[in-house]
Amino acid sequence: MVEIFNDEKLDDLDYKGLKIIQKKDGFCFGMDSVIIANFVKISRKNAVIADLGTGTGIISILVSAKNDVGKIYGFDIQEDMTEMASRSVKINNLEDKIKIVNADIIGLSKTDFKNKFDYVITNPPYKKMNTGIVNENEKKLISRHEIKCTLKDVIYEASKLLKDNGFFYMVHRPERLPDILILMREYKIEPKEIQFVYPNVETQANLVLVKGAKYGKEYMKILEPLIVYEKSGEYSEKLLKFYKK
Amino acid sequence: MVEIFNDEKLDDLDYKGLKIIQKKDGFCFGMDSVIIANFVKISRKNAVIADLGTGTGIISILVSAKNDVGKIYGFDIQEDMTEMASRSVKINNLEDKIKIVNADIIGLSKTDFKNKFDYVITNPPYKKMNTGIVNENEKKLISRHEIKCTLKDVIYEASKLLKDNGFFYMVHRPERLPDILILMREYKIEPKEIQFVYPNVETQANLVLVKGAKYGKEYMKILEPLIVYEKSGEYSEKLLKFYKK
Repeated sequence: MVEIFNDEKLDDLDYKGLKIIQKKDGFCFGMDSVIIANFVKISRKNAVIADLGTGTGIISILVSAKNDVGKIYGFDIQEDMTEMASRSVKINNLEDKIKIVNADIIGLSKTDFKNKFDYVITNPPYKKMNTGIVNENEKKLISRHEIKCTLKDVIYEASKLLKDNGFFYMVHRPERLPDILILMREYKIEPKEIQFVYPNVETQANLVLVKGAKYGKEYMKILEPLIVYEKSGEYSEKLLKFYKK
Repeated sequence: MVEIFNDEKLDDLDYKGLKIIQKKDGFCFGMDSVIIANFVKISRKNAVIADLGTGTGIISILVSAKNDVGKIYGFDIQEDMTEMASRSVKINNLEDKIKIVNADIIGLSKTDFKNKFDYVITNPPYKKMNTGIVNENEKKLISRHEIKCTLKDVIYEASKLLKDNGFFYMVHRPERLPDILILMREYKIEPKEIQFVYPNVETQANLVLVKGAKYGKEYMKILEPLIVYEKSGEYSEKLLKFYKK
């Protein structure tokens, strides 16, 4: 029996009956997590996967449900979040697939986890410090702003955590694209596929999905646009597929 | 009276009655030139503009017809192309707006043109040497492959040719995106707007349009997707607008 505390709620993921525990007044998972979980394709057998900054555990849970995975390690620096995410793993009976670990991402590659992962997936904080509205509670702040780790930290650690031919998946904001590509090159994760997410066909992109390969060859593709809403205001067919088994 | 030679043809640009001379068996302008000419927005009064690798002169001609420009200099290394482009300028009575110059782009910034331009526009050769099919005649080869200048040369020269707050516009292939953004940062042209061109809504992008600002602040947007064909196979409304006055 998994306990749900008074400041928490149990939400339905609308996918294979999966559920997730979230704080009532904290950072809740967003569409970005659902989108990256669907962008990720695990093709390697018995893949060992890292989810850097797992938060509620949403990406680890969705990726394990949508792919044949070996083991996913969901790392997060926030102790109470990892405790809560562990209960979400348990509620979904995914303990044999997912292990939630309370750890700082910075320095993780100096532990036994170095060069251990076939895939590293991350939905890191998007905002540089001192940008955007920061009158949020501390938990939301850590999840959204680069307080505990910067984009550079994330890409550096990801590179060191990956096996030499491992894959990197990240969702981020399009305005950081130059930084993302420069840092990936610098740390030897070659960009291979990029997909932009457009709220609708007439708007600027509001998310970018990146797939890279450690020590990969220089050649990349811009995948078809991922358009979230039809002109009618309804979810696009592509988005609705994310919620089908 | 402008002469058209036997190995040439006079084509209609379907815009304000403009015409262009092209070689019958040479490199003909493509949709990429039309698309970048429409992506460019000249807002500065009496702007002095460089078109690096002007070829047939297509971009200079379209940009001067669609904007209020001071003077456009169309540079090209191929002497016979600049001679032909000059006749296209004359046929359209644009001699007071456009000057075609036979010059190597490499080293152009060491001439009096250094720091002289409000805008630099370029549709450079896309392909790295030793990639793609190279059984083409020499003129096509120079226009399509990085024989006479590399992406690095183009961005370096563009930066030096621009005034300190000038703008850079380029069309290129999406697979070169990491190189493009890395080189722009390196040479102090900050990426400000990027637009991807998708043949249709289900396909990968086949062109990327980039706008940068010399010494610009770090912040960029991914503009709405530019989709060329509707599902019906007809040109999209957006594309058709390029041909309206």
